[in-house]
Amino acid sequence: MGKIAVYAGSFDPVTRGHEDMVQRAVRIFDRVVVAIGTNGAKSACFPLEMRLGWLRACFRDLQQVEVASYEGLTVEFCRQCGAGFLLRGLRSAADWEAEQNIAYVNRQLAPEVETVWLPAEDALVHVSSSNVREIWRNGGDASVFLPEGVELPKEEKK
Amino acid sequence: MGKIAVYAGSFDPVTRGHEDMVQRAVRIFDRVVVAIGTNGAKSACFPLEMRLGWLRACFRDLQQVEVASYEGLTVEFCRQCGAGFLLRGLRSAADWEAEQNIAYVNRQLAPEVETVWLPAEDALVHVSSSNVREIWRNGGDASVFLPEGVELPKEEKK
Amino acid sequence: MGKIAVYAGSFDPVTRGHEDMVQRAVRIFDRVVVAIGTNGAKSACFPLEMRLGWLRACFRDLQQVEVASYEGLTVEFCRQCGAGFLLRGLRSAADWEAEQNIAYVNRQLAPEVETVWLPAEDALVHVSSSNVREIWRNGGDASVFLPEGVELPKEEKK
Amino acid sequence: MGKIAVYAGSFDPVTRGHEDMVQRAVRIFDRVVVAIGTNGAKSACFPLEMRLGWLRACFRDLQQVEVASYEGLTVEFCRQCGAGFLLRGLRSAADWEAEQNIAYVNRQLAPEVETVWLPAEDALVHVSSSNVREIWRNGGDASVFLPEGVELPKEEKK
Amino acid sequence: MGKIAVYAGSFDPVTRGHEDMVQRAVRIFDRVVVAIGTNGAKSACFPLEMRLGWLRACFRDLQQVEVASYEGLTVEFCRQCGAGFLLRGLRSAADWEAEQNIAYVNRQLAPEVETVWLPAEDALVHVSSSNVREIWRNGGDASVFLPEGVELPKEEKK
Amino acid sequence: MGKIAVYAGSFDPVTRGHEDMVQRAVRIFDRVVVAIGTNGAKSACFPLEMRLGWLRACFRDLQQVEVASYEGLTVEFCRQCGAGFLLRGLRSAADWEAEQNIAYVNRQLAPEVETVWLPAEDALVHVSSSNVREIWRNGGDASVFLPEGVELPKEEKK
Repeated sequence: MGKIAVYAGSFDPVTRGHEDMVQRAVRIFDRVVVAIGTNGAKSACFPLEMRLGWLRACFRDLQQVEVASYEGLTVEFCRQCGAGFLLRGLRSAADWEAEQNIAYVNRQLAPEVETVWLPAEDALVHVSSSNVREIWRNGGDASVFLPEGVELPKEEKK
Repeated sequence: MGKIAVYAGSFDPVTRGHEDMVQRAVRIFDRVVVAIGTNGAKSACFPLEMRLGWLRACFRDLQQVEVASYEGLTVEFCRQCGAGFLLRGLRSAADWEAEQNIAYVNRQLAPEVETVWLPAEDALVHVSSSNVREIWRNGGDASVFLPEGVELPKEEKK
Repeated sequence: MGKIAVYAGSFDPVTRGHEDMVQRAVRIFDRVVVAIGTNGAKSACFPLEMRLGWLRACFRDLQQVEVASYEGLTVEFCRQCGAGFLLRGLRSAADWEAEQNIAYVNRQLAPEVETVWLPAEDALVHVSSSNVREIWRNGGDASVFLPEGVELPKEEKK
Repeated sequence: MGKIAVYAGSFDPVTRGHEDMVQRAVRIFDRVVVAIGTNGAKSACFPLEMRLGWLRACFRDLQQVEVASYEGLTVEFCRQCGAGFLLRGLRSAADWEAEQNIAYVNRQLAPEVETVWLPAEDALVHVSSSNVREIWRNGGDASVFLPEGVELPKEEKK
Repeated sequence: MGKIAVYAGSFDPVTRGHEDMVQRAVRIFDRVVVAIGTNGAKSACFPLEMRLGWLRACFRDLQQVEVASYEGLTVEFCRQCGAGFLLRGLRSAADWEAEQNIAYVNRQLAPEVETVWLPAEDALVHVSSSNVREIWRNGGDASVFLPEGVELPKEEKK
Repeated sequence: MGKIAVYAGSFDPVTRGHEDMVQRAVRIFDRVVVAIGTNGAKSACFPLEMRLGWLRACFRDLQQVEVASYEGLTVEFCRQCGAGFLLRGLRSAADWEAEQNIAYVNRQLAPEVETVWLPAEDALVHVSSSNVREIWRNGGDASVFLPEGVELPKEEKK
């Protein structure tokens, strides 16, 4: 069956940073499940179906990649997928602090799932979904941060 | 009367990290007031009475410990208690940054109240109330992070 | 026309830290536009007109300073002002992390606008608008953090 | 041939933290080369042969692990090994800052070698070679930080 | 006998930051032992006797304070003093990272000795021995960082 | 005479990061003095004359730039130059921590000299002299980090 990794996030929207992370992950793992957690706590800016569509378009040509969504704990989803690895990108010291915390909690809940971090590509360190949303909300053009084929809706739903 | 410290927080819920902090604080101070601030700004996940009950259960056997709640500025509450010390636990660099800010503001408002920091027990560095809430909201079991006798309600109030 | 810098923020409210920053900026730039961004995303604690009034009172005697408000992207406002520089104050490592991100995004959107950082005066490192609001909401006296002539309203609007 | 990772360091001496890192790495990679860089710049506390011996003893039972030493750039050694991955453990924010820098330089020099980070086991976050050396130099007992079978010499060579 | 704390350092030289730390420590502890560790690893800039003299002059009027020097592990010295507490000042995030590490190692070696951190007085956050030495080595006047009565030698020994 | 800034460092060697910093500084200041401090404390890897030569070659075409060296305190050199500003580049959180300290000490010693920070160009965040030296010492090719016309000597002096 091989080595399976889950790359979980809200992908709100997917960015060139996420794209790069997955392209490198397939060099390490046999299968990468890119999965949108819909835990309710944080409400997304873009609808789930739109975000899933972007992910599918973005990773269409990578046969090792699967796109999915899930509810509940991320480690439970890993178990359902048979994934032994949780993939996370690290961009900044603040990221690191938060990710270390997430890694710890996940290890407490599911010691058999290993967290693996990949460094962000340098040119993509500041390419984040929240930056994209901020530019988009203020009427700017964020397309330089987006994978080819991902297009944001014209106007924010009010 | 001895040396009195206030250990303020939202304890939403109390964790094994808080418990450890108080157990060490009573070695330094003659009396420790564990106090829930109800400043309104942040709304708590669990009701005040539930949180106070957990604290009382948790520190029942420590005679130097008193449980309380207060409104308004923490330093004002210290004055009402006759407390010369404000106790805080430090877990991470991010904590430190926030706590240094809190210590400064408190010193401006009440120079006679001294802030004292204790390092978190290493095994408890990632044991935080927000981690507990996150697990609980996603239907996971957070009991490993909770003091004996603290039990979370079965379901989130919706 | 000279070198123009925009010093953008929410100034909610203006503090002695902001005041100090502007007083030093006029040593470097020929004109400093102190501007309140009204991007909607974050709702302010004090009304825009009140905040503009405070800024005008605060910088009345500095002829190089102009007070304004704007909607949309900060770099677009810089272009409208003919400003080649974006001024930011740095107080803490957390500030730095966030500011580096802002600088990057702004450079992507408008490479001709240069970000310039000034270190906060040491005595003012912890003087932030959020600290002022926190004290004010809890009924404390925050006047030591405010420029002369800036007076907060007596009660929070509920 | 499979996926080969190099885990480079000075291992001066190897610790329980290093041991844990390798035990987890063999779950991800087909072969892990634990390699001591002897770049001269930093002089080691313990002789190279002693350090290699400790590594061999420590990983004797892991058939996927090979122990080696090298001179020159780490990425050149990766090329010689046919390794596509550079494994690093991350313990702290300071670690992260340094490691991000190393990852960048290595990517500039050898884009085909991917850096992979694993979070340190929580209980081992503070288990570092420098802590071991500090304790040993002051006559303390550092054995709790060392893998089974690794024994430090009785006295520091003067 | 009361609560005894050790405040260990190299005090190379003692600064107004150290002085402030001790003045606040005597509010918490019954006795504070200000102690210079002479572990050999780091060579001091000023001779031990000079540094001890400065400390004695500086704390002459504080009857709860004792000045000492020691070799070997700090926690061993705590045991010899009957001290249950190790006092450290925290000035910066970098400090915090290093101090958390020291606290951990000390807890491993001597669980009965509790580490207690005090926040540096804001105006003294940047007052460090290394800053004093840097100024002094370049012929500048560092007296503003020094306690009253502490005077550096006129010239660096070459 | 206009606004003069000193950009001080060891430039051991000058990098594309330094070059970029100066190219942006001349947009803000009327004159920029790029100056090598020779304080003795840290011994440089490359001889002073070689480093000065590189700087002169690098900034030959920028008429506002002057190259110099100095002994003693940097703020004293600013006074000699009539410079009201000290320019520093910020690349990382660790940089920030150190630079904040330097800014504070300089303000204590010379309140009339203002520190100004510029964010490093993103693509150059990891381009540091120490990285260049590390690569060079291990026989690698660091030319991608160096300004055009700067060539390192073939072999390290032993």
